[in-house]
Amino acid sequence: MARLREQINYLWEKSPFYRQKWEESNFCPALLRTLDDINRIPILHKEEIRLSQEQDPPYGMMSVPGRGPFIRIGMTSGTTGEPVIIPFTEEDYFGVYCAGAARAVWAAGIRKEDVVHAAFGFTPFLGLAAAYDCCEHLIGSLVIPGGIWSSLMRLTMIRKLGITVLMGTPTYLLHLAKVAEENGIDARTLGIKTILTAGEPGKMSIPNTGVRLEEAWGARIFDYCGTQETHYLAWLCDENVGHINEDLAYCEVLDPETDEPVPPGESGKLVVTDLISKTHPCIRFETGDLVKGIEAGATCACGRTLSVMKGFMGRVGDIIKIRGVCVSVAGIENVIRGISECSDSYEYIASKTEGGMDKITVRVEPKYDVDSGQWDDLRKKIAQKLQLSFMVNMDVELLAPGTLPVYELKAKRFRDNRPPITDTGEVSTKAAEKATARV
Amino acid sequence: MARLREQINYLWEKSPFYRQKWEESNFCPALLRTLDDINRIPILHKEEIRLSQEQDPPYGMMSVPGRGPFIRIGMTSGTTGEPVIIPFTEEDYFGVYCAGAARAVWAAGIRKEDVVHAAFGFTPFLGLAAAYDCCEHLIGSLVIPGGIWSSLMRLTMIRKLGITVLMGTPTYLLHLAKVAEENGIDARTLGIKTILTAGEPGKMSIPNTGVRLEEAWGARIFDYCGTQETHYLAWLCDENVGHINEDLAYCEVLDPETDEPVPPGESGKLVVTDLISKTHPCIRFETGDLVKGIEAGATCACGRTLSVMKGFMGRVGDIIKIRGVCVSVAGIENVIRGISECSDSYEYIASKTEGGMDKITVRVEPKYDVDSGQWDDLRKKIAQKLQLSFMVNMDVELLAPGTLPVYELKAKRFRDNRPPITDTGEVSTKAAEKATARV
Repeated sequence: MARLREQINYLWEKSPFYRQKWEESNFCPALLRTLDDINRIPILHKEEIRLSQEQDPPYGMMSVPGRGPFIRIGMTSGTTGEPVIIPFTEEDYFGVYCAGAARAVWAAGIRKEDVVHAAFGFTPFLGLAAAYDCCEHLIGSLVIPGGIWSSLMRLTMIRKLGITVLMGTPTYLLHLAKVAEENGIDARTLGIKTILTAGEPGKMSIPNTGVRLEEAWGARIFDYCGTQETHYLAWLCDENVGHINEDLAYCEVLDPETDEPVPPGESGKLVVTDLISKTHPCIRFETGDLVKGIEAGATCACGRTLSVMKGFMGRVGDIIKIRGVCVSVAGIENVIRGISECSDSYEYIASKTEGGMDKITVRVEPKYDVDSGQWDDLRKKIAQKLQLSFMVNMDVELLAPGTLPVYELKAKRFRDNRPPITDTGEVSTKAAEKATARV
Repeated sequence: MARLREQINYLWEKSPFYRQKWEESNFCPALLRTLDDINRIPILHKEEIRLSQEQDPPYGMMSVPGRGPFIRIGMTSGTTGEPVIIPFTEEDYFGVYCAGAARAVWAAGIRKEDVVHAAFGFTPFLGLAAAYDCCEHLIGSLVIPGGIWSSLMRLTMIRKLGITVLMGTPTYLLHLAKVAEENGIDARTLGIKTILTAGEPGKMSIPNTGVRLEEAWGARIFDYCGTQETHYLAWLCDENVGHINEDLAYCEVLDPETDEPVPPGESGKLVVTDLISKTHPCIRFETGDLVKGIEAGATCACGRTLSVMKGFMGRVGDIIKIRGVCVSVAGIENVIRGISECSDSYEYIASKTEGGMDKITVRVEPKYDVDSGQWDDLRKKIAQKLQLSFMVNMDVELLAPGTLPVYELKAKRFRDNRPPITDTGEVSTKAAEKATARV
């Protein structure tokens, strides 16, 4: 509460953007008496940040006037439009952003003695890069970049250089294990002890992805998540529990329709307040993420008492309403990764039937060793499991292995081909627009 | 001399590799009385390093026993075989390798206020990465990676993010300017003040490459060079003079046939002794580079009194003997870059005529705006200029623009299709083997 008050007072003084925004909605720092008063502060939408950067490039409201010099920038991946640019001073980058990442890295057991490989290309997308920076700058491990290596070169180097830690997206690291298999290499013998994933939902949100990675690599899988605009929010401990960096950011879970807080532990949309950063503090930032819930006040078996993140369910636009039922994209992923005959390549498409009904088509590649004679049974099995999970029938199509693209960074698996829905329809206009914007 | 003596004594004590190598050739530190005695120390060949790494992976003799922990590795690009792996402690990396790079960066006028973009993918090839690390760690500029960006994305970001410094290979940065032109963007208006190139011969060695880059970007071009095994050796100042980091490394220029020193200022092969690094010191390392010469004792107009590197002429294997005449690959490049109708894409092939004569074929892409009606004149012009430079006739072929590959890292422009030559031939077996190994 003291940190929140300090942050709010600072921005009231220093940031013309927040001063104006808050005055317009009749908020002033004096109204902040208890933590519950946080809902008097208006929510900050990504679109406002983007607009401010258009008007005052390149940083817009992400730079409190007079702050600098900057040593890093972050850029959102631009999945929902023009990327947002986030400038970091040394203090904000190493003292806050990387410090948040350091807890994920430390909890994963990564130490100075490890040899850490970045299986991704460096760009200002900091999701993975900051954990790498953290190994380099804060932990002092031997760090080995190689985003532009071919998969086969990478496998050779993992063995040759004694690499013990891999960082990358779940999708790419599953692909890498497959390349190993195709080349007669057992990925479990390569000496990888620890895998840290980010950039896409990993073990914290989709446990079956974690299981697949652990089987493929014979390694412990850790996962962390956050947003570029704010921080590293949560990371897995040894007990597979997601802990929140609650001293760095205050997380609220709200009802997506009413913006009111949901009861403790229940699911809803995640709104984050950056308590620490001085250059680009986001106050009540609507992340666009849906979370399974947050629980406070428990003590984890690992000994930590931080609030617990129960995992992400997808983006606000990724909850598809199908004939009145909410279907989460991450939920579909979890079902597919739980079926051993399915490969890691799949996508889902929402569309309308000719009769105007909502329809989801799930397209999956079976593994190479699944005989095509078994495909029809597999198709039925997938459809049945999806039906059991969601109580909705979905169309399942099987594709020849190798048909779908392989993603090195964030996989784009969802397309919504439905026409925009008016506000009399069953999906709110806003959600439909968001879903469409992502295509 | 004191540094050299200290280094030699240290290795005599600590490195079984050097102890054995030196004892076998009857050298011991006591023999080192004056600087001239350095030629009593046997030369170190890349093959010896490679062999030691095969026997004692991954570092072999590149790691003095007991040194560590390592925070970085370097890897040679492997153009002449299996890459050599060079481990760095924090002290060797930031205190020596990056400190050497820092002089190049500083001489290029890059300061904290600059926004530095890495137009290359990060791998353990440190040629470019260390200058970037130096901007990040030692100078504190805003550094922006983006090796995996498309060229068009990169051009957009240069403008959007206010990038002032570009780092990359000459080949790629010339290509990037071409992409700008093709998309109606004048690269000279993008705000780049400074370009620092490495990884391939740049302005120091091939002045016309510098002129091309300056014209294309409207920026000052700086260049530096070195080897992964040793250091950053030399870098350009404001006066376009190459200065040697002579306190970090001792450079000798030797006759490629006899291994005897050439007279001061004359050309020959470069042999380098690392005076400082404690983990991987190379003593009298045969770099495989041919230099135009080194001059000591002058004071540059920039005020520096360091010895001067007159530039590189190519690799030892890149001097092709054609009918008794030495032709340097870098020399061909300089001729082509001096002809305005030629694009930056070309390659050269050495082969034998049916009659058994040596033959060089130079294949060049004209610029897009050169009418094909002018091609025959251009072909003659190139052949004539090459003849004037080398007093040897070469075949010139023109190729449709876009035929040859674009290289992001080191360009491979030379192929030697001649059969290996015996030691009775006009090229020594060793040089021919090297040339062949590079194909």
